[in-house]
Amino acid sequence: MAPTPTAVDLDLAARARVAALVEALPYVQRWAGQTVVVKYGGAAQVSPELSQAVMEDVVLLHQVGVNVVLCHGGGPTVSELGKRLGIVPRFVDGLRVTDEETMRVAQQVQVGLISRDIAAAIGRRGGRALGLSGQDAGGWLRARLYPYTDRVTGAPVDLGRVGEVTEVRAQVLRDLLHDGIIPVVAPVAVDEQLDALNVNADAVATAVAGALGAARLIFLTDVDGIRGPEGTPVPRVSRHQLDLWIATGVVTGGMIPKATACLEALSAGVGRVTVADGRVPHALLLELLTDRGVGTLVEDAPSEPQP
Amino acid sequence: MAPTPTAVDLDLAARARVAALVEALPYVQRWAGQTVVVKYGGAAQVSPELSQAVMEDVVLLHQVGVNVVLCHGGGPTVSELGKRLGIVPRFVDGLRVTDEETMRVAQQVQVGLISRDIAAAIGRRGGRALGLSGQDAGGWLRARLYPYTDRVTGAPVDLGRVGEVTEVRAQVLRDLLHDGIIPVVAPVAVDEQLDALNVNADAVATAVAGALGAARLIFLTDVDGIRGPEGTPVPRVSRHQLDLWIATGVVTGGMIPKATACLEALSAGVGRVTVADGRVPHALLLELLTDRGVGTLVEDAPSEPQP
Amino acid sequence: MAPTPTAVDLDLAARARVAALVEALPYVQRWAGQTVVVKYGGAAQVSPELSQAVMEDVVLLHQVGVNVVLCHGGGPTVSELGKRLGIVPRFVDGLRVTDEETMRVAQQVQVGLISRDIAAAIGRRGGRALGLSGQDAGGWLRARLYPYTDRVTGAPVDLGRVGEVTEVRAQVLRDLLHDGIIPVVAPVAVDEQLDALNVNADAVATAVAGALGAARLIFLTDVDGIRGPEGTPVPRVSRHQLDLWIATGVVTGGMIPKATACLEALSAGVGRVTVADGRVPHALLLELLTDRGVGTLVEDAPSEPQP
Amino acid sequence: MAPTPTAVDLDLAARARVAALVEALPYVQRWAGQTVVVKYGGAAQVSPELSQAVMEDVVLLHQVGVNVVLCHGGGPTVSELGKRLGIVPRFVDGLRVTDEETMRVAQQVQVGLISRDIAAAIGRRGGRALGLSGQDAGGWLRARLYPYTDRVTGAPVDLGRVGEVTEVRAQVLRDLLHDGIIPVVAPVAVDEQLDALNVNADAVATAVAGALGAARLIFLTDVDGIRGPEGTPVPRVSRHQLDLWIATGVVTGGMIPKATACLEALSAGVGRVTVADGRVPHALLLELLTDRGVGTLVEDAPSEPQP
Amino acid sequence: MAPTPTAVDLDLAARARVAALVEALPYVQRWAGQTVVVKYGGAAQVSPELSQAVMEDVVLLHQVGVNVVLCHGGGPTVSELGKRLGIVPRFVDGLRVTDEETMRVAQQVQVGLISRDIAAAIGRRGGRALGLSGQDAGGWLRARLYPYTDRVTGAPVDLGRVGEVTEVRAQVLRDLLHDGIIPVVAPVAVDEQLDALNVNADAVATAVAGALGAARLIFLTDVDGIRGPEGTPVPRVSRHQLDLWIATGVVTGGMIPKATACLEALSAGVGRVTVADGRVPHALLLELLTDRGVGTLVEDAPSEPQP
Amino acid sequence: MAPTPTAVDLDLAARARVAALVEALPYVQRWAGQTVVVKYGGAAQVSPELSQAVMEDVVLLHQVGVNVVLCHGGGPTVSELGKRLGIVPRFVDGLRVTDEETMRVAQQVQVGLISRDIAAAIGRRGGRALGLSGQDAGGWLRARLYPYTDRVTGAPVDLGRVGEVTEVRAQVLRDLLHDGIIPVVAPVAVDEQLDALNVNADAVATAVAGALGAARLIFLTDVDGIRGPEGTPVPRVSRHQLDLWIATGVVTGGMIPKATACLEALSAGVGRVTVADGRVPHALLLELLTDRGVGTLVEDAPSEPQP
Repeated sequence: MAPTPTAVDLDLAARARVAALVEALPYVQRWAGQTVVVKYGGAAQVSPELSQAVMEDVVLLHQVGVNVVLCHGGGPTVSELGKRLGIVPRFVDGLRVTDEETMRVAQQVQVGLISRDIAAAIGRRGGRALGLSGQDAGGWLRARLYPYTDRVTGAPVDLGRVGEVTEVRAQVLRDLLHDGIIPVVAPVAVDEQLDALNVNADAVATAVAGALGAARLIFLTDVDGIRGPEGTPVPRVSRHQLDLWIATGVVTGGMIPKATACLEALSAGVGRVTVADGRVPHALLLELLTDRGVGTLVEDAPSEPQP
Repeated sequence: MAPTPTAVDLDLAARARVAALVEALPYVQRWAGQTVVVKYGGAAQVSPELSQAVMEDVVLLHQVGVNVVLCHGGGPTVSELGKRLGIVPRFVDGLRVTDEETMRVAQQVQVGLISRDIAAAIGRRGGRALGLSGQDAGGWLRARLYPYTDRVTGAPVDLGRVGEVTEVRAQVLRDLLHDGIIPVVAPVAVDEQLDALNVNADAVATAVAGALGAARLIFLTDVDGIRGPEGTPVPRVSRHQLDLWIATGVVTGGMIPKATACLEALSAGVGRVTVADGRVPHALLLELLTDRGVGTLVEDAPSEPQP
Repeated sequence: MAPTPTAVDLDLAARARVAALVEALPYVQRWAGQTVVVKYGGAAQVSPELSQAVMEDVVLLHQVGVNVVLCHGGGPTVSELGKRLGIVPRFVDGLRVTDEETMRVAQQVQVGLISRDIAAAIGRRGGRALGLSGQDAGGWLRARLYPYTDRVTGAPVDLGRVGEVTEVRAQVLRDLLHDGIIPVVAPVAVDEQLDALNVNADAVATAVAGALGAARLIFLTDVDGIRGPEGTPVPRVSRHQLDLWIATGVVTGGMIPKATACLEALSAGVGRVTVADGRVPHALLLELLTDRGVGTLVEDAPSEPQP
Repeated sequence: MAPTPTAVDLDLAARARVAALVEALPYVQRWAGQTVVVKYGGAAQVSPELSQAVMEDVVLLHQVGVNVVLCHGGGPTVSELGKRLGIVPRFVDGLRVTDEETMRVAQQVQVGLISRDIAAAIGRRGGRALGLSGQDAGGWLRARLYPYTDRVTGAPVDLGRVGEVTEVRAQVLRDLLHDGIIPVVAPVAVDEQLDALNVNADAVATAVAGALGAARLIFLTDVDGIRGPEGTPVPRVSRHQLDLWIATGVVTGGMIPKATACLEALSAGVGRVTVADGRVPHALLLELLTDRGVGTLVEDAPSEPQP
Repeated sequence: MAPTPTAVDLDLAARARVAALVEALPYVQRWAGQTVVVKYGGAAQVSPELSQAVMEDVVLLHQVGVNVVLCHGGGPTVSELGKRLGIVPRFVDGLRVTDEETMRVAQQVQVGLISRDIAAAIGRRGGRALGLSGQDAGGWLRARLYPYTDRVTGAPVDLGRVGEVTEVRAQVLRDLLHDGIIPVVAPVAVDEQLDALNVNADAVATAVAGALGAARLIFLTDVDGIRGPEGTPVPRVSRHQLDLWIATGVVTGGMIPKATACLEALSAGVGRVTVADGRVPHALLLELLTDRGVGTLVEDAPSEPQP
Repeated sequence: MAPTPTAVDLDLAARARVAALVEALPYVQRWAGQTVVVKYGGAAQVSPELSQAVMEDVVLLHQVGVNVVLCHGGGPTVSELGKRLGIVPRFVDGLRVTDEETMRVAQQVQVGLISRDIAAAIGRRGGRALGLSGQDAGGWLRARLYPYTDRVTGAPVDLGRVGEVTEVRAQVLRDLLHDGIIPVVAPVAVDEQLDALNVNADAVATAVAGALGAARLIFLTDVDGIRGPEGTPVPRVSRHQLDLWIATGVVTGGMIPKATACLEALSAGVGRVTVADGRVPHALLLELLTDRGVGTLVEDAPSEPQP
């Protein structure tokens, strides 16, 4: 018998690549067949490099069997187009009013351009995505006029075509995912007459994740997570704790609506929610396929490390 | 035994309604399970009444089992928005050039507004429609730059982002139809880099009908059909005859591209093509579910009356 | 830009036909995918014109996606054949006795002729129907000897092969409907030995509708509906009210068994029941696909107008 | 270790039963999933014992996975009923004419009684059978008027409602078999107007076997097989040989139409045909599940013993 | 009309064969689609004739639609191979210790030889079987170290690689049965590290039957059944009665673990359990397809005779 | 508006991991849904580290959608066990003879131990594997006695139970892959009597790859590829070229059977074959999911770089 052959050394680069793939295995096993909803916006949407990385992440996750749904916001393009069209912004009680014309501009930009730019970017990497607006599929994303009242007088204030999501008829999302297609959702819903309403993209992502019973909802933000009493971002926080932090003023300012959305998602049956730092390239891959998180994980109860 | 009861008379209105339904039966049997592609545009798109009738027709056809695909054009809204944005149209060799900015405007209007207005209108009548742009589903509608050459010099002319349809990856259409959804197709295709190209809506409808092996392609136009040598619209014409009429100048002017599209569709395997008078309310229902045609039927060979 | 083309007027007849179809849309949407059981008999079965209209209705309803099951009665043909064969009717306590021979005659006529005439009539209009007798499919329609007792002495009376429906093994109906076939059911059931029993066609329809969880059961009768305290037919009546009318003698005579069948059907889970005027041509279409009812709708509780 | 236990003797009866089951195994493996069409008639239909044995065979074959279709004839009952109804038989050229009334009688007996008696008999043994007439399923069994001509004058002779099978629309048979149901076919076909025609039961079985691509067609007859030149029944004969025997007068009399039907079935793609002795109890089981044939096997070419 | 043909007599042998098949019909109907787990061992495994008969039974049962799972023991071959390899058996507290090496030997024999001999024997009769070890399918058969304690001191005793079944991940069994494959299960399970453990074959059969919700579990033993107070085998015994017999010492010795396994199986949801006499040839066929049982049927409650 | 947030730098390690995953995307897209057959043996099987890496690779490939089939060889364990059992090897014409007893030993080791060790190793990483021997599934891997003849005399030489693969009945492999199970194939086939034959593992892998129409067959060997005329391993070689190299003696010695197997696999319809260096850790991942090959790719014709 010949002497037992021994292992041949691998160069460093190959070793690293292989190690990364092997490290990813348990995570891929963890997420395959699960649904993950991503709220896409902020820096991740504005920077071409970050945006490209997000698209690579989405296609890779989809390819290894994750059901990804991408909900995007409108970004600065809407205001810009409005300005060029000479639409003079109107304010009530310090809040911008979305008149019919502004709504049409928002729809044009979000549904006509942004959703399609995303679909094309995913297509360029071999994925298949499809832009969805609330009017599609018999009005799958339903909302009502946002019931805003004047803080002082308590009188109802007409903010125009601004809506609050009321219902996600998720069959079209399930059908598309089953057909191997990544839904790309614009923040445009419809009222009972199927007329368009501008809705908040965070709220859309939360409602969609709830309706699909998503295992994870990820907000790509421009911060490095939720900050605790020490003022530094925490890697994970329980629902109960976060509730307390909001009540006691630990969570403040712009983080409040985000934190509230996290809690709502958990209530709606979403497994866990991540407030991720979208300024980190490939934040989605890092969050889902490596042992390195990027931001704060909000969950029902303190739990063992993942996956 | 009691005397045989006799039929009770029906009032005139009820009699007419019932008669219409009964008359429709063989037509419903004829079209159920078949695919029909409709090119929607012209008066049918501009007039609110006609447009509403088209939507009712589409939902009814879909409901009785016809696989309807709606391809729409852009209409005057594109130019209008361009004007408001201060885009100065540029012409080469008398032809309007679609520069990048104009392309973005066209996409906004066609994908962001028109497709969605149609989807909402169908939704209001209980149907489920979904707007599709060429960027969707991995770039399902492919085109290349329109290879225009100067008629005099023969030199290639750059018309900008104007394309010629090259390929329909029809799986997404089949999936949507299978999911009970009516595809609404905007005339926006993509090139190999998945960048948008403006394409002719008639050509999109023809290519889509060919790729789906549609039983019928219907162009909703602003004329009462194809006119024969006597100068009056003919109810039906064979492929061979129409070829001859084009060659001998019987068919002229704006009807030539339409007639050519009909012949191309037949070559691509579409069963029959109708150049329908879209100014007639409910032209689709009349054409498909009654014995009254609305325009000219182009078919491979002279045939027995339908269905 | 050319002047906007305007709608072209439609002739009156075409307008009426189109209007009828459009009017039918919400009804078609309402009934598609639902199960409707029709008890066919009386004038609708005797008159050739009415009968032809019923068949047209059944085929059209089936074509637009309604799962129709037709239960027919025997009509006068049975007695006639018995007479020709020299069978002398025998009576006990004033009730006709169905001896073995009469049962064979009934079976011959109902299963061999009537079911097949109906199947052929449906076939001529492009539908696919199939006649079912209780012996089929392992004895799908079960009954026991009707437990009749002498009103005076209380002693059991032997009425011969007359049965009372006890069980509907509905799988064969579901399989046929799934295969695109309209079941045509004769009023012949089987006992535990799988020997034939004559059963009441109204009872068959009620039991079948209950077993299938039908959305609607329609009795085609020779009256214009259930009459209320004013002595005129009422368009709709609640279960509770009808119970009361029977108890208080508002409903009398031959209508009592019909009214009881309605109540039993509701108890068995049928959505609503119509006592329809079968003498009105196309009563089924009028009842299901137009806003004009033909008779009395019996339902669980007062409800909003349909669909 | 304990001493090896040895086999315990089995009583003779149990041994025989087990041996029969074990002997049947390769035959069950051979036929499972195959289609077998049985022409049921003659002694097997007339004798209660033989008839009961046929039903047991059919249910057992169906249970072990054979797709059985049973085609039956009318038997003497038709004439008898005609006589009782006072129908005077009419003859043309020595052939009985089937007038409208006789056709109705035949249909009553065959579809109303015989098919249902068979269905009930199968049901009593735990099988699920369903009687089919030509009017069912949109007229699944098509025929045309039998084109009989006077042998002397060559003039066409009107034999009334006697038909020649032209087409088997076998989808309904496949659907029923798929639903676990044994189709029982009466010799009643329909013409293009879906009016009933009396057809020959052997011809129905042959046409049905051909349309289904049956592996075996079995005629239950009152003879012990096809007799060869020696005048004794042969166990098997090739198509070619049988052709020759017909041509050379070896096969004569009533066996000629049967032999011709065998050859037609082979031409239509049926695997093999058996002219079986229906007077042998359980002829079907013996023919298909044991190594003992009962009659003559007609096949394309001489072959190795089965299975 | 010709005289009615009469039945032709069948020779005795054919009559017996046919009678056996007909007798089997209700049993085949009873078991088709049901799951039966067989513990194979003892004389039935040792004797070539008995073993061959078991394989014929298994293939026949599988062929007529029974889902058979075969669980086998190791038999004397394991000890023999150990001896040849010079493994000196070690005992603790009178119990044999399964060290690593003995475990390897057991696995070799049971998985490498016995399972495959069975698979081949089934294959030779036209069946398709597949040998399964606990390591297969992600460790489908789970166990933990058998928690044995010294009877005197109560101190835990290390019996080596002997396990107690804890979990059956039955999906692989269901998948194989669905693919038309008979699972052959060796008594080798795995612990949480997926290292092999020797387990008792009776316990495997019991656990597998419970996990599959089997209609019947059959132990092929070397005795003629469970003996009652009279000391003679009883044909059937209720769960309650058997419990009592164990408690009161009616059941003794080697029958106690078998009787306990029966009770456990009933608790786990198995329909009935048979302690069958495996020394009777074709015990499985006799038990399942004839009216002759072979041993003792243990069931939840006294019941009517079967099937 | 707030200033555009910018990308946050990623630490080097995370960057490398993410880069590896992103680099793998097109390869994952290339191989998802394809079948890859791996011949596992040599150093990769002997070294615990290498072996562990192979298992990780197999599970990862399976997880991302590749249909992996693993064919293993016997390794030195077989001889070792034979020696311990005192089997004296016998040689004919210098070739070792596989007598019955040696065959049993080989089967024990390969099927009872090696296949199960592999199944357990895959199970530990979250995969589901199942060991298959030729006796399984009705004898799925068929062979005949290897037709060896004495080189000098030309007389046939009896090498005992050594076989040559003749047929792969691949349905069981397809069923297992469809059920999400990785087949692990031992080099044990069966002859027509379903008795075991020892077969060459390379030949098994080649035959299996051919029967499945695998996109890739990978031999894990102990060399760094096929060496060309320069004596150094070549990254790729065409079928034609390799044929030439064998004919002209460029390929010599132990590489000849391997090279021949490659050519046979291509003839059998396998897409491409890799003679991979199994001494490189994670050779499978490197070969399939990175741009770094590990050995020589044999293909039909010179082709463009992959994927």
